[in-house]
Amino acid sequence: MTTTNHPTKWIVRNGVFATGEREGVVRGCMIVDGDTIAYIGTEEPEDARDLPSIDGKGLLFMPGLVNSHGHTAMSLLRGYGDDMVLQEWLQTKMWPMEAKFTSDDVYWGSSLSIVEMLKSGTTTFLDMYDHMDRVAEAVVQSGMRASLTRGVIGLCSQQEQDDKLNDAISFAKNWHGQADGRITVMMSPHAPYTCPPAFIERFVQAAHDLDLPLHTHMSETAAEVEQNVREYGLRPVAHLEKLGFFSRPSMVAHAVHLTDEEIAMLAANRVAVSHNPGSNLKLASGVAKVPQLLKAGVVVSLGTDGAASNNNLDMFEEMRLAALIHKGVSGDPTAVPAAEALRMATLHGAQSLYLDNLGTLEAGMKADFVALDIEQAHFLPRTDYVSHLVYSAAGQDVRHVWVDGIQIVKNRECLTLDEEKIRFEAQSAFEGLLAR
Amino acid sequence: MTTTNHPTKWIVRNGVFATGEREGVVRGCMIVDGDTIAYIGTEEPEDARDLPSIDGKGLLFMPGLVNSHGHTAMSLLRGYGDDMVLQEWLQTKMWPMEAKFTSDDVYWGSSLSIVEMLKSGTTTFLDMYDHMDRVAEAVVQSGMRASLTRGVIGLCSQQEQDDKLNDAISFAKNWHGQADGRITVMMSPHAPYTCPPAFIERFVQAAHDLDLPLHTHMSETAAEVEQNVREYGLRPVAHLEKLGFFSRPSMVAHAVHLTDEEIAMLAANRVAVSHNPGSNLKLASGVAKVPQLLKAGVVVSLGTDGAASNNNLDMFEEMRLAALIHKGVSGDPTAVPAAEALRMATLHGAQSLYLDNLGTLEAGMKADFVALDIEQAHFLPRTDYVSHLVYSAAGQDVRHVWVDGIQIVKNRECLTLDEEKIRFEAQSAFEGLLAR
Repeated sequence: MTTTNHPTKWIVRNGVFATGEREGVVRGCMIVDGDTIAYIGTEEPEDARDLPSIDGKGLLFMPGLVNSHGHTAMSLLRGYGDDMVLQEWLQTKMWPMEAKFTSDDVYWGSSLSIVEMLKSGTTTFLDMYDHMDRVAEAVVQSGMRASLTRGVIGLCSQQEQDDKLNDAISFAKNWHGQADGRITVMMSPHAPYTCPPAFIERFVQAAHDLDLPLHTHMSETAAEVEQNVREYGLRPVAHLEKLGFFSRPSMVAHAVHLTDEEIAMLAANRVAVSHNPGSNLKLASGVAKVPQLLKAGVVVSLGTDGAASNNNLDMFEEMRLAALIHKGVSGDPTAVPAAEALRMATLHGAQSLYLDNLGTLEAGMKADFVALDIEQAHFLPRTDYVSHLVYSAAGQDVRHVWVDGIQIVKNRECLTLDEEKIRFEAQSAFEGLLAR
Repeated sequence: MTTTNHPTKWIVRNGVFATGEREGVVRGCMIVDGDTIAYIGTEEPEDARDLPSIDGKGLLFMPGLVNSHGHTAMSLLRGYGDDMVLQEWLQTKMWPMEAKFTSDDVYWGSSLSIVEMLKSGTTTFLDMYDHMDRVAEAVVQSGMRASLTRGVIGLCSQQEQDDKLNDAISFAKNWHGQADGRITVMMSPHAPYTCPPAFIERFVQAAHDLDLPLHTHMSETAAEVEQNVREYGLRPVAHLEKLGFFSRPSMVAHAVHLTDEEIAMLAANRVAVSHNPGSNLKLASGVAKVPQLLKAGVVVSLGTDGAASNNNLDMFEEMRLAALIHKGVSGDPTAVPAAEALRMATLHGAQSLYLDNLGTLEAGMKADFVALDIEQAHFLPRTDYVSHLVYSAAGQDVRHVWVDGIQIVKNRECLTLDEEKIRFEAQSAFEGLLAR
């Protein structure tokens, strides 16, 4: 994608903006200059009079959503196994199919996910998977922003470990900073329970060498925490700290089963957490201690996880789940208020992926934002739009999407991708997997 | 509404039907005769060849959703107070505004809710509120189906109690069975903690006299259960049983705080339960013991409660919450599987409202059904459409809605109501409440 045919400077007039940065909303205008928000405010600057403009009437603007943990290719397995015990689900459903995934399957599965994410207002996502060149290819085509990581399971021979690590390193070298900077890379040993300590240490070293952040699954289930204690004498947080993981900027997914000491350690080490409420509930992993993590000052963002365990990639649903379940489980109706849930899905998402100048609607921030159609019953009355975004909205309310100031969804159609072809090819890929 | 311009007998061809009655889906056709489903099956009957038809390609049909507990007028207070402690929310936000509600406010608030419900696939709802004549008026205009109840708080003088009970009785006499039978009535003392025992007994008597079912709030919070024990020496289930409540067909909303004995008593008395997961989480009331209720054989349906404590009326969200939270909280990923959640939102909803021949797509059932647009990324691959309905879909995926065989939403537009006017009037009503 190039910026051809896009004015370099333009203005949204008559808009309502949930900036994600301050309380309430701004009613007024926003000026975009290239890939950056140049101005947002109630008053229109005098020199803006002749700018190309769009009319924001009937639209609510918000920062693009950041999905901080997922496996996009797994949308190919959506609905292929549900309501099952975790190990049976993995062993009889997921792993046999995933073992057959070709790079084309990854490309079409990821493309399907990208369509779904874009149309539900997600502008940035983290993806941890295999065949990452093909995911990067889909990202480039889409115009979306992504933090991509080659997720590596280390339960294999030394030679295979070497090959996988080298694959992750060369992916990072080839892709970090590509697509006008929209693609960044993290280094990802899959999890403490799937990677021997020495292998994790090699990832830490590689992250140092490449100056990249680290990402991993951690403490998703009670069983894996117990296993960690059994095998290494430590719970996962202390284990990762001992291996030097937190010497790099790092972000862990799930973090469902934590002690108070572990929460303090994560905060002290500035480790960000991707909270995946939908997946954690569906797989019966448990309910993460999000209010405590937030209180300790941990940056908590939101992720959908893969579509096989969610089963959609709608970040509005994750926002709402995050705002609802911690109230219901703690008994405190003030837990995770709407503005906090919105921040988790936007600014904290960007911070979790170590992306600067992203996640709010403020001058100087990247022009990644979405517009919702609020001329609908569930956005009335016009009381509190942040509440409406978190408690009432759904991804299908998103009408337009911009990334780096470039519109990539217009009136619910992807401008950059052939949606019909992607749906067809994704279905064919699934049928191919079944047949092989 | 009349059936003028509607063919009495017609057929949907090339459809996928999640019948709600059997496993999986039926691919084929459905014949509607007047207000009834005459046939559904893979093979098209020979004599159907010349019937007027619609093409079901790209659509997934399912029974219309049944929202078994709510207060539709409260959509006027959506977003007016969130993330607050319950008593403060009620005392500083809800009650002062509700005290000002006129019958016009109820009409426009209910109309707003009806638009939202219809467009998200709900074809039947229960409403417990005041000024019920105006709700009935909105129901008649909409073409929707509803179980309407005058909810009565009895913490008042004998004279006021008499007036309220008489209002409930005359509403029942005037409206039960109206609108071609689409409107039915239940008798509703608001809750054991807001109605003295003698007043509840008068409602039970009235329900006997009128041959109507009973509905009430029960055991929503731990505090109200403790209060019941303090004041009457019994927990709410035993208290209601003692007052003869369960001598009528009855349905209770919430039922969050139950002992095993209470669950057994509900089952033995065939009391239906409306589970309101979104509201219970948002108000931090707790998590109802739904797996145990289902195991005991209790009919458990789903309700949104009012939009002020939800904050939308999307039953797809309640289905998903019901399917997700009980897994996460119990640690059992097989708890409330997708097909069970779908039944809770359809057939069990109809049973909870004591409506016969409603809630599945089967020959002989009322022709209340909806069609979703499944040519979207989140409905792929075509694995398990029941899973997709529960775990992936949202209300905005609903494209068409029929009640009694008559189409009332077409391409996401209400055919029976002036949506723009309703949005305008609802906003005006809210502003009027603020100003008074």
